[in-house]
Amino acid sequence: MDFKFLQELIAPAQTKIAMIIMDGLGGLPLEPGGKTELETARTPNLDALAAQSALGLTIPVGPGITPGSGPGHLGIFGYDPIQYEIGRGALEALGVDFELGPDDVAARGNFCSVDAAGLVTDRRAGRIPTDMSKELVKLLRTIRIDGVEFFVETVKEHRFAFVMRGPGLGDALTDTDPQKIGKPALPVQALKPNSEKSAQLANQFIEQACKLLAGKHPANMILLRGFAKFPAMPKYRDIFGLNAAAIAVNGMYRGVARLVGMQVLDVDGTGIADEFATLEKNWNDFDFFYLHVKQTDTAGEAGDFASKVRVIEEVDALMPRLMALKPDVVIVSGDHSSPAVLKSHSWHPVPTLLYSKHVRADGIAEFGERTCARGSLGVLPAKDVMPIALANAQRITKYGA
Amino acid sequence: MDFKFLQELIAPAQTKIAMIIMDGLGGLPLEPGGKTELETARTPNLDALAAQSALGLTIPVGPGITPGSGPGHLGIFGYDPIQYEIGRGALEALGVDFELGPDDVAARGNFCSVDAAGLVTDRRAGRIPTDMSKELVKLLRTIRIDGVEFFVETVKEHRFAFVMRGPGLGDALTDTDPQKIGKPALPVQALKPNSEKSAQLANQFIEQACKLLAGKHPANMILLRGFAKFPAMPKYRDIFGLNAAAIAVNGMYRGVARLVGMQVLDVDGTGIADEFATLEKNWNDFDFFYLHVKQTDTAGEAGDFASKVRVIEEVDALMPRLMALKPDVVIVSGDHSSPAVLKSHSWHPVPTLLYSKHVRADGIAEFGERTCARGSLGVLPAKDVMPIALANAQRITKYGA
Repeated sequence: MDFKFLQELIAPAQTKIAMIIMDGLGGLPLEPGGKTELETARTPNLDALAAQSALGLTIPVGPGITPGSGPGHLGIFGYDPIQYEIGRGALEALGVDFELGPDDVAARGNFCSVDAAGLVTDRRAGRIPTDMSKELVKLLRTIRIDGVEFFVETVKEHRFAFVMRGPGLGDALTDTDPQKIGKPALPVQALKPNSEKSAQLANQFIEQACKLLAGKHPANMILLRGFAKFPAMPKYRDIFGLNAAAIAVNGMYRGVARLVGMQVLDVDGTGIADEFATLEKNWNDFDFFYLHVKQTDTAGEAGDFASKVRVIEEVDALMPRLMALKPDVVIVSGDHSSPAVLKSHSWHPVPTLLYSKHVRADGIAEFGERTCARGSLGVLPAKDVMPIALANAQRITKYGA
Repeated sequence: MDFKFLQELIAPAQTKIAMIIMDGLGGLPLEPGGKTELETARTPNLDALAAQSALGLTIPVGPGITPGSGPGHLGIFGYDPIQYEIGRGALEALGVDFELGPDDVAARGNFCSVDAAGLVTDRRAGRIPTDMSKELVKLLRTIRIDGVEFFVETVKEHRFAFVMRGPGLGDALTDTDPQKIGKPALPVQALKPNSEKSAQLANQFIEQACKLLAGKHPANMILLRGFAKFPAMPKYRDIFGLNAAAIAVNGMYRGVARLVGMQVLDVDGTGIADEFATLEKNWNDFDFFYLHVKQTDTAGEAGDFASKVRVIEEVDALMPRLMALKPDVVIVSGDHSSPAVLKSHSWHPVPTLLYSKHVRADGIAEFGERTCARGSLGVLPAKDVMPIALANAQRITKYGA
């Protein structure tokens, strides 16, 4: 079922959909036979909502595939993350809240160490502290070349985002990272004729950077990889007929939401309660809200089971504030799993709850991985959740007579 | 899995498959936490059969999509309803039991009202009574143009089916309905060169109709829309190796069955018991039977929960007559959901039961939405049911060595 098919069936309605995404929500028990983070958490509000909802397990990208944050979000947003790939350079720029334009070419940058012969001795420049990186980024920002504008943004430690802006820039470019030490950085090469100009400009930038950084060992050179433009994504308004808002604190999620055409709202503060306050404040102005909770994933990746449980309980305690707004459809899910025992993202399907007054409720009064496995949504691609939500919001008309 | 793949594995067998379709079977509770129509109905025979069956929930078209009767049936018949789209004109002709030929071009017709300047004042001619419509259709049938044959069939009130038969007619044609009052009817335009001739003929027909209806206000003009040929569908005999029969009272379902190559049987009467009698009478002559029960959908669309329950109970009481014939495979399902609380078709998955002596039975002795959600067929596309039924009928050979 492609967007073109769906688009023709979309009808306007006065209904509101709220999607609460706990990043990395899915988990695993600490010991065989035990409970997951979500099953351990005391979640009276989510459990009560589950009783009136259809439950299921979503597969973000495909069976066995562990998604990054970009693809994970595209999935639950309703896009096939394999079809709509976000290049690594574009993701890096999104991650630092850089407003990437449609013609900009972005790349991931590393400071690295080279010896007198120009051979790479450390691909990460000894993971220099972020403060030092920020100073070096200021140096790189002094580079000027006619016909193009460069942007350099510190990410963390040796990492920075690199963006070229100008007319006629293609992104079919090779990486400069030789992937091994003892080799020289590679020149950027164009893989298509439309990228010849980009290749030249990137190489000129690198040449000047090399001169500017000459005395700055261990960060005396740069490597660029993952050149990518912002992918042209169909927008929420066009494919779903939704005036959508995004509530997220971190740049990456704000960037992916912007990519699909959501208006990214300012959050006054960085706490989860601050995000719910933003939801309340803007409730009348949009018909779709995506609210992102980062802390579940942070705890999962840190291997901190108890902390992930606490974050889930915090979200649960805030749920009455959402329900008081009387949303027509509520989705509670994650963009992927991040089990504390694995200390990383994982491929496990994600517990998902879909509430509306028109849903065929499963009558299961517990929101957890094992209850969701018994739910009537089944095990489904994450991208299928949005059409079901739209149907429940009475925003899809009948197909055929 | 496409038909070409399946086709090569199909093997003959002396087995019989019966598919009982209760139209709009899927439902919703009247109140949160309550029972659906099917769960409310007393169905001892279906429950006993469920205990020996695999259960599941079928998605007729796609997640969140509410199917019309045409696409809903194509799904449970084993076709992808998005790939095999039936145009609205063809559906209208099927609906009045018109035997649409492969080269005929059909459209939906409306009588409408126009003022002296030819501007549409009522797109539905005040919904004139069907009797009046029948008289006007007789007038339209007098229109003769060289090289083409016209057919006009009353549907209901202001609606009629219009068919052009002749060589070289394409169906890439625009509608004449201006969609708004105060505008003139639009001319039919060809969207492809192969449809130029059709456009000319349709416009000549409209011109003559306009003259014939001049004094017949409020029905003094016609509008045509949804021009479509009968889609070329692969047939049951070719793709499934089945000699298939259809038992249905209403034209639409008889038409869709004919479309996929089923022989449409005459039913002596219009009751559900009459359909089961037809099944018994023809049992020896076919190896697949589709039996359609319209009344579940009629009750659902009317919002009559109790009546839908009664129809399901009536079907249940007739099931022993089917089982006495010792079918090898039985499918009990619907073409879509029509919950009485929604008074319309809906997107909700459809409870489905598949019985055979080779099925891996779930041992769940209740046929209902929530029990089907726990069944081993899972939540599956409706089109996947037929291959599973064929396998249970030992009609599919091994793939690969």
